[in-house]
Amino acid sequence: MPTLDEDRLFPQERAIRSLARDLFETVKDLPIVSPHGHTDPRWFAENDAFENPAELFVTPDHYVFRMLYSQGITLDDLGIPRRDGSRAEVDPREVWRIFAQHFYLFRATPSQLWIDHALQYVFGVDQPLTEDTADDIYDQIDACLAKPEFRPRALFDRFNIEVIATTEGPLDTLDHHATVASSDWGGRVITTYRPDQVTDPDNATFQANLDTFADLTGEDTRSWSSYLSAHRKRRQDFIAHGATATDHGHPSARTANLSTDAAKALFDRVVAGGATPDEKELFRAQMLTEMAKISLDDGLVMQIHPGSRRNHSRLIFETFGADKGFDIPGSTDYVETLAPLLDVAGHDPNFTLIIFTLDETSYGRELAPLAGAYPALKLGPAWWFFDSADGMRRFREMTTETAGFYNTVGFNDDTRAFCSIPARHDVARRVDCSYLAGLVTTGRLGKADAFEVAADLTYNLAKKAYRL
Amino acid sequence: MPTLDEDRLFPQERAIRSLARDLFETVKDLPIVSPHGHTDPRWFAENDAFENPAELFVTPDHYVFRMLYSQGITLDDLGIPRRDGSRAEVDPREVWRIFAQHFYLFRATPSQLWIDHALQYVFGVDQPLTEDTADDIYDQIDACLAKPEFRPRALFDRFNIEVIATTEGPLDTLDHHATVASSDWGGRVITTYRPDQVTDPDNATFQANLDTFADLTGEDTRSWSSYLSAHRKRRQDFIAHGATATDHGHPSARTANLSTDAAKALFDRVVAGGATPDEKELFRAQMLTEMAKISLDDGLVMQIHPGSRRNHSRLIFETFGADKGFDIPGSTDYVETLAPLLDVAGHDPNFTLIIFTLDETSYGRELAPLAGAYPALKLGPAWWFFDSADGMRRFREMTTETAGFYNTVGFNDDTRAFCSIPARHDVARRVDCSYLAGLVTTGRLGKADAFEVAADLTYNLAKKAYRL
Amino acid sequence: MPTLDEDRLFPQERAIRSLARDLFETVKDLPIVSPHGHTDPRWFAENDAFENPAELFVTPDHYVFRMLYSQGITLDDLGIPRRDGSRAEVDPREVWRIFAQHFYLFRATPSQLWIDHALQYVFGVDQPLTEDTADDIYDQIDACLAKPEFRPRALFDRFNIEVIATTEGPLDTLDHHATVASSDWGGRVITTYRPDQVTDPDNATFQANLDTFADLTGEDTRSWSSYLSAHRKRRQDFIAHGATATDHGHPSARTANLSTDAAKALFDRVVAGGATPDEKELFRAQMLTEMAKISLDDGLVMQIHPGSRRNHSRLIFETFGADKGFDIPGSTDYVETLAPLLDVAGHDPNFTLIIFTLDETSYGRELAPLAGAYPALKLGPAWWFFDSADGMRRFREMTTETAGFYNTVGFNDDTRAFCSIPARHDVARRVDCSYLAGLVTTGRLGKADAFEVAADLTYNLAKKAYRL
Repeated sequence: MPTLDEDRLFPQERAIRSLARDLFETVKDLPIVSPHGHTDPRWFAENDAFENPAELFVTPDHYVFRMLYSQGITLDDLGIPRRDGSRAEVDPREVWRIFAQHFYLFRATPSQLWIDHALQYVFGVDQPLTEDTADDIYDQIDACLAKPEFRPRALFDRFNIEVIATTEGPLDTLDHHATVASSDWGGRVITTYRPDQVTDPDNATFQANLDTFADLTGEDTRSWSSYLSAHRKRRQDFIAHGATATDHGHPSARTANLSTDAAKALFDRVVAGGATPDEKELFRAQMLTEMAKISLDDGLVMQIHPGSRRNHSRLIFETFGADKGFDIPGSTDYVETLAPLLDVAGHDPNFTLIIFTLDETSYGRELAPLAGAYPALKLGPAWWFFDSADGMRRFREMTTETAGFYNTVGFNDDTRAFCSIPARHDVARRVDCSYLAGLVTTGRLGKADAFEVAADLTYNLAKKAYRL
Repeated sequence: MPTLDEDRLFPQERAIRSLARDLFETVKDLPIVSPHGHTDPRWFAENDAFENPAELFVTPDHYVFRMLYSQGITLDDLGIPRRDGSRAEVDPREVWRIFAQHFYLFRATPSQLWIDHALQYVFGVDQPLTEDTADDIYDQIDACLAKPEFRPRALFDRFNIEVIATTEGPLDTLDHHATVASSDWGGRVITTYRPDQVTDPDNATFQANLDTFADLTGEDTRSWSSYLSAHRKRRQDFIAHGATATDHGHPSARTANLSTDAAKALFDRVVAGGATPDEKELFRAQMLTEMAKISLDDGLVMQIHPGSRRNHSRLIFETFGADKGFDIPGSTDYVETLAPLLDVAGHDPNFTLIIFTLDETSYGRELAPLAGAYPALKLGPAWWFFDSADGMRRFREMTTETAGFYNTVGFNDDTRAFCSIPARHDVARRVDCSYLAGLVTTGRLGKADAFEVAADLTYNLAKKAYRL
Repeated sequence: MPTLDEDRLFPQERAIRSLARDLFETVKDLPIVSPHGHTDPRWFAENDAFENPAELFVTPDHYVFRMLYSQGITLDDLGIPRRDGSRAEVDPREVWRIFAQHFYLFRATPSQLWIDHALQYVFGVDQPLTEDTADDIYDQIDACLAKPEFRPRALFDRFNIEVIATTEGPLDTLDHHATVASSDWGGRVITTYRPDQVTDPDNATFQANLDTFADLTGEDTRSWSSYLSAHRKRRQDFIAHGATATDHGHPSARTANLSTDAAKALFDRVVAGGATPDEKELFRAQMLTEMAKISLDDGLVMQIHPGSRRNHSRLIFETFGADKGFDIPGSTDYVETLAPLLDVAGHDPNFTLIIFTLDETSYGRELAPLAGAYPALKLGPAWWFFDSADGMRRFREMTTETAGFYNTVGFNDDTRAFCSIPARHDVARRVDCSYLAGLVTTGRLGKADAFEVAADLTYNLAKKAYRL
């Protein structure tokens, strides 16, 4: 018995549900365009089998293990790798049992939907995951993983992925992408330029990173103009490996537009190591504008997603490192902060800046009005905690009336959980079709228009916005 | 074939829809009370024909042209007048074609609904606006505009407008209102006192405005007490031309309650031209309280609507001037800021302060609790970007449980797009009836009460709050 | 004819309504667990009859009288006691008439639902409250109040209250709780430790409170370590009177983690009376962390509910005192502010910190991510202005996808309006069941799971979180 309702996420009301279903029917088999994500390119380069169910579903997924942690299970119980590289010795089957026993914690969360979807559609599991079924399901997945049709490339093809973007730092040699490109496999795996390691002075190894950055580019990365040249060169390398976009994980949306002299002086203080916190923030701000200026030349689409207060727990960060579920959003301004960058590049229709937020209050108040005015600005989809049925619905309800559909960019899965990709796109398609059906049945959108918009939201807008 | 669904905006669910329809039936033909708007009084004074479809629907409507601009169409392509008075030479028919070709951008926005409504109900257009129908529809509207029954006064009567308020600055001579009043036409067109030109030191012509203000009033407008007398006199002029309200376009909701000496000293610095940004903001804050104090005497209802960061794009402002779609809302506080004014006048049930916001987070958190306590405070309807179906629904959902219906003031259309007025009131009536029907069918409001509330929200509350 | 719809608050759609009803059927008769509230323990100790309908429904309920005040009725008209202990002489029947005449102001507010519920289910009133029925209903309630079955203990039993927590200050002698405990009545009435009187230097009688605190504990409450010992002792007294929790009414969520020396020095400045506003705020912040540290030893669950700007109107505060409907919420941060306390105690699964908010923007942005990560953190239910059907729905919609159900703690009625308790729990149960039914019918929650969750949200989570 399948665990998933065929009509899941469609509104109950008959007329809306019926139209949502019809709309979904026309988009459900469209290829997946995944222009922003964090899958590991090694998977597609080496095409090795995934290790075991726990390594696939629990250990790498901070959505999952932080929820278990919030209810008293330790990260060591789950074998989460520690910051120092060590790792508690745990039996993956035991980890899986803990997960199954506590799977009720995920009731009504997107994780439940993604995991149920992957279990059913990827691995053919036909019973709910509980303490009682844990071992059976473990064995079933484990057996699958040994088969060639569950290797990364085979799953990629089976998931109907037309293109997937991974995210690499500026010091990455992009070997895995080169391996994929030169292989006889046809999957399109492209990279994305995320230069935080050399643009964020608060990065723990910032100085060493500048050295490596110099080695890779042959530029003097401690001289302002050469440092910028190094970026230009590396962006060209990334473009050669398929990149069409950059990505910037700054704490705030602050941008700056300093004179060349002022920027140079600021950079000098930063590389000398004596910058104050304010100067570091100003440097990050200036670098966003510098990246926009380079985009005007090389055409890379720019993405920012501020607002996360990373590593909120000192204890977890010191013991287990970053990305362990303790990144907590906070109030985020876009109006004052983006003005300097938009002044420079915001009116150029050939430049695209895609913005994500973790502060839903900015959807209607700030982001939709900005995207509904500036030619360069587009809204990224509901992100992270809001990559969920209710989150996506709120995104549409709070942005469409002001920005319309055509200042948005379709869906991003933004995930490192490979098997959740079809599930996430499935959720987005269902929620969008439900939203459209609601508009049609309340006389706010023509029926024929709705079918066109459904395809745009699912496929066309992502390709267009990311120049794929 | 009409483009609009007769049941538009009513929820799909049968019982709710049926009751919403019944409620709407009782209010749909009530006269329009429009106590806050920006139509041009010259229209009603001179009663000249509107020029052409582009001048009617595109050029004056920043909701429309900023959306086109956001997708790469230049403001010159649309013949938007520049700040220096010049204007790109464009054929209005060509502007209309661009508009029609890009009308899909407005899908599911309120603009689409308003324009479809005006095309169908005002001009009898029975086909959707697209690239293919653009010329036909242009011709049809153009032919209408030549007829007497499409002159402003005839439309005013046809729209069933009982009273409309325009907004004038303190330097306006109100000639158009005088012309209307002395004409044999019975339409009630009243003015509203909006003194920003002489209360905002950041106004580009503030000093010259003070001179004109002096000329108009015979007061020394550079002496604090005479300056206040000038306001009192001008408010009497406005009252003589029908005004029942004032309106204040301040950037924030900040108010102040300085001693007379401190206020005088601050005013002296402001008129001397040496005030700091903080002092200018403090002066605006103090002037809100001064206006409230005069309202205690002359009975004018006071309106504030803070929160817009005006002219966000320097480029657009410098080339095209203000009100070009680049006013972006930001986070806005009402709790600390309003306290000084409310201390002075907030407990007087004969004083009314109506507050609008662009920050929806303040509805439930700040505004509803304030309006549910202070006798003077009332909540203006969902405003600007939120003058929309979802915006109105959220307004009711986030204010009613705390402030009730009777601390709100009915609907404002707040528009300069004359032909959209019936459409906007139609939307508000449908959304309110839908909300009420939802309350009744879930046992939260008596059915008979709902019919009473529907009439109150549509008609009675606006008349009462604005003393019309 | 009853005034309340049997299916109130259930969504209209047939399938959802039907399941909501089925779910509700299984939880509607579960005992009331009321772990956080403000009923008067004297009622249960002395078991005297309530005085009259006005004293029961109007005078003590700031939800009610602030709404009447907002529409021009004075607090003296209603006989609200003044700050100086005096009170306008009013006939309670006349107060009741004013209330009835203006009961339309409460349309669609939770107060209407609570009052209708109490009138119907507690007092058997079968007609709506209006000007016309005011006297009849007054007489009917008044007659009831004279009967033994309407005494507090009888109502407590009839309401099926398993346990109720009241809230007392650290200077309270807890005599009423002792009286209840030693009586032959079986009702469980427990206290809660709310030490604001001796932790908030802005308390008007802070210095005198420290003296009384010393008298009660035999500790030198002006020496840091003894002051902390005094808290430990008093908490033990409260535990002896049933307390399982503490409660802290701080203006912000700010916490601090000073060294012992720094804390001692700060305390010395505070008790010397020379602390600045910043130092006072820092002291409150430090005291939250001190309380958390003591909780690690004595096991009391900790509750905070920041965000209210108390006594917004100077006039009302000076004439009528605190808690008169003029406490207005404002924007509230939880991310930066809670970090110091969570650093100390947030990872201990044996410590529980329950957080309430009046800033709904924090639900999804801050609180759900924090509660979905820190083992100690749990989310209190929708609070105060949001203790309402829409407020509760938004709480679930904005927290569940990130924090799940099991990082929440069930419902709190938080009331001093005794007769509204069954009504409030009834609303919460209906809203939760409706939410669950919506999840099931859209394929986001298993049906069997929904029945389990319904019981958890109604009963089990409150008992577990509050250790009852």
